[in-house]
Amino acid sequence: MKVVRKSTERGKPRRGGVTVVGIGPGSIDHMTTRAIRELRSADSIVGFGFYIQQIRSVIRPSARVYSSGMGHEIDRASLALELASAGRKVAVVSGGDPGVYGMAGPIIETASKLNMNVDVIVVPGVTAATASAANLGAPLMTDFAVISLSDLLVPRNRILERVKTALKGDFVLVLYNPQSQARKEPLRLVHQMLMKYRKSTTPVGIVTAYARKGERTIVTTLERMLDHEIGMESTILVGNSSTRIFNEKILTPRGYYSPR
Amino acid sequence: MKVVRKSTERGKPRRGGVTVVGIGPGSIDHMTTRAIRELRSADSIVGFGFYIQQIRSVIRPSARVYSSGMGHEIDRASLALELASAGRKVAVVSGGDPGVYGMAGPIIETASKLNMNVDVIVVPGVTAATASAANLGAPLMTDFAVISLSDLLVPRNRILERVKTALKGDFVLVLYNPQSQARKEPLRLVHQMLMKYRKSTTPVGIVTAYARKGERTIVTTLERMLDHEIGMESTILVGNSSTRIFNEKILTPRGYYSPR
Repeated sequence: MKVVRKSTERGKPRRGGVTVVGIGPGSIDHMTTRAIRELRSADSIVGFGFYIQQIRSVIRPSARVYSSGMGHEIDRASLALELASAGRKVAVVSGGDPGVYGMAGPIIETASKLNMNVDVIVVPGVTAATASAANLGAPLMTDFAVISLSDLLVPRNRILERVKTALKGDFVLVLYNPQSQARKEPLRLVHQMLMKYRKSTTPVGIVTAYARKGERTIVTTLERMLDHEIGMESTILVGNSSTRIFNEKILTPRGYYSPR
Repeated sequence: MKVVRKSTERGKPRRGGVTVVGIGPGSIDHMTTRAIRELRSADSIVGFGFYIQQIRSVIRPSARVYSSGMGHEIDRASLALELASAGRKVAVVSGGDPGVYGMAGPIIETASKLNMNVDVIVVPGVTAATASAANLGAPLMTDFAVISLSDLLVPRNRILERVKTALKGDFVLVLYNPQSQARKEPLRLVHQMLMKYRKSTTPVGIVTAYARKGERTIVTTLERMLDHEIGMESTILVGNSSTRIFNEKILTPRGYYSPR
């Protein structure tokens, strides 16, 4: 069942929809042309306040903005779907890429729960893994695993199991949401596990607030990882057995100079 | 040692450098503002011909273009570094994100080998994992592993080991470079392993030529995966134990509706 409503403005039928827009890792500079166009053409903008601030300058002055606090993903998803059902052209703002721990999931999950058949389009963006890697050099040139350390929705044991498995597979690790003021235990436990399975000299990169005010890029080692400031806006990359540091850059060679 | 040369054009000292630019997964639409600006301001463009074609419309008419065939990553890297040492402002074009099996590695690895201290900046782009996920729905909402099936530089056994490990950790899998005309064996072997460790009904997405001519998005199951056309421009996403299909979209729920 597709919902079609009369537009109150022009008196012709109008089909609403939700576009989940990846706004990239930091400044507007790292948004795609497509993402900017989608935000410009939306009549309703739904998102976490922090991200709404980031894209204020590109949205229509006439757009209705529905800003909310951290968390509340399901509320935002429900609101966006309702607005779209009522014929509105809704852009849901999502940091980085909306498919990586972002708003694409809650929207599609909520549509499924409520059995709503609303058009949902996802516009990809630059995700923190590759943005952080860009600042660090080339740490992701071999296979890598992306793991969120947030234990809000996922049991801590499952996170630790995933980290252990990825370490056994010699994956480069990318740790999203490593810690917050209120949640420091998972990173501490993960660090213990990293120290057990990888050399203490393994290169580690910490990128905080990429392309935002206060951006910090740290190249360090596993041993010293926890000596650095790590917060909500940080992403941590942990090298594998072949990762090394050259000219203050982290490099995981792909083998161009020593094939197979 | 930083190389500074006199510019022949204006007679003032000019510092060269290499910017490795991620041009995203397909059309210019999915390039970031920053990537477009970097290409516009470069006086020399180095890249694989296929990608150069993709960005022809945004580069300066006066820019020198150094286009080459597939492979030749080290030749391109050496050329870019030499041009930069001679004071040129070089943009190296890399598909998707340059740090994910792209040109960031060869550039930094070559600079290291040749012990050249040239300024290298990496501009991130949208990588195939998240672009493909966007077309498929929200398959990457839990932890995922990115694995290239190209056995050109990496031994086949190591690839298979990584796949097995990621399966044991219940990661969603993203397979880059799944197969080519000349290289079909790795995917066949990986498929056997997938069938061993995951249910035959596991949702699988295949996205080919994202945002390019001939774009195809297929939602299928593990059992039927190899019935579909898979080529050089394809990326394959394999769900984990909780991934399901809703409204022809692939969804790996993050647990908003059933926390922990």
